Amino acid sequence: MTAPPPVIVLVNPQLGQNIGKAARAMLNFGLTEMRLVAPRDGWPNPDAGPAASGADVVLEKAQVFATVAEAIADCSQVFASTVRKRDAVTPVVGPEGMAAAIHAQPGRSAILFGPERSGLTSEDVVLASHIVTVPINPDFGSLNLAQAVILLAYEWSRTTALAQPTRFEVEPRAPQADVEGLIGQLDEYLSAADYFRPPERAQATRQTIRTIFNKTGWSARETKAVRGMIRAIAHPRVRSNTSNS
Amino acid sequence: MTAPPPVIVLVNPQLGQNIGKAARAMLNFGLTEMRLVAPRDGWPNPDAGPAASGADVVLEKAQVFATVAEAIADCSQVFASTVRKRDAVTPVVGPEGMAAAIHAQPGRSAILFGPERSGLTSEDVVLASHIVTVPINPDFGSLNLAQAVILLAYEWSRTTALAQPTRFEVEPRAPQADVEGLIGQLDEYLSAADYFRPPERAQATRQTIRTIFNKTGWSARETKAVRGMIRAIAHPRVRSNTSNS
Repeated sequence: MTAPPPVIVLVNPQLGQNIGKAARAMLNFGLTEMRLVAPRDGWPNPDAGPAASGADVVLEKAQVFATVAEAIADCSQVFASTVRKRDAVTPVVGPEGMAAAIHAQPGRSAILFGPERSGLTSEDVVLASHIVTVPINPDFGSLNLAQAVILLAYEWSRTTALAQPTRFEVEPRAPQADVEGLIGQLDEYLSAADYFRPPERAQATRQTIRTIFNKTGWSARETKAVRGMIRAIAHPRVRSNTSNS
Repeated sequence: MTAPPPVIVLVNPQLGQNIGKAARAMLNFGLTEMRLVAPRDGWPNPDAGPAASGADVVLEKAQVFATVAEAIADCSQVFASTVRKRDAVTPVVGPEGMAAAIHAQPGRSAILFGPERSGLTSEDVVLASHIVTVPINPDFGSLNLAQAVILLAYEWSRTTALAQPTRFEVEPRAPQADVEGLIGQLDEYLSAADYFRPPERAQATRQTIRTIFNKTGWSARETKAVRGMIRAIAHPRVRSNTSNS
């Protein structure tokens, strides 16, 4: 069984636009459950939709509560997002610690975000099981609501994805025999060009060449293309001035 | 020695407001070096400052370039940020892979972000050594510019905090200008050898060459050695049979 995605709780949000932006931030990382605690301008708010840039499903499903306590009643783990230093004895975690804790238990989790200007009150924070703080430039901490939401949503998503490694579509590296083929071809042309001089340096130079071409990470196709280029430079075609077409 | 923080390169940004928001996103995670490639409305832009919410230091230091190539000329590792699927064979990494690669070598790294509406072009992407993609909800990918910046800045910062400052025994990757020099030299010889045939395939072939040589990870010394080999093959020395010694 996997842990359900966390619920995003906006406590007393002020601008409808910011509610929309938070919805957009959430959906980017697969979070769809938004709860609003006493939004200042009521709900629904006509400014939210345009700012959500298509994340309407989040806004349509959003539930409104009168108090934080009601909004988190069904949640077994609650994270209070704040950047300010707190005297509270509530355990403080970073985004990764939060994500690990969410994934570590099957109950529902919530992340609380305070109003734009002031953040969560101490009364809100004490309702949480954890404080979550994004480590930020100590000389310039200036996250807006949607940015705080997106960073924590990203971190949750990142940790989720670790269980399901993505498939890479890059070409595999060429087999070593192909690299050897390239090095052999180069050596042949370079020897013919009297490149390995003086003789006492030849061995070191050959080792350098080997290092250079072993580290490229080229695929079989790319290795072949490079061989073609070397051949072309060594044996330039005479440009035909009489075109067929 | 530790790796320098990455440079954030905004390619053809449209709105000054978004440049300001990107600066704010950067400074939250300690990034201060912004480069602008041909911003649509010129620079400075009066809309940027208010949107930066105090991250003025980033905007004041921002440098403007005419082309992406100039903006990344001193960078030895370049990450093209994109959410779209690419056919390119440029290696694709996630945010964590990007951060690890930045920390793993001592040269300067850059992260490229495309214009708000359209993102990076294929021509921009082939200049990069890696594509970086934030794994996002496949049914709703809608990151704005500042959000893409903040997620990658966060990931860099997160990994910095974890990173033990390692000593680098590897040579740094060559600056991008050296790689460009190698590609230019190759192109010259290959053109002279009538390699780019038929003409309608030439552009695709040039992109393949770019991809092949951007991914090598060669140092400045190695890049120079490869240029020497190509020159030797193109202009073979006549072997002198009368030895001096």
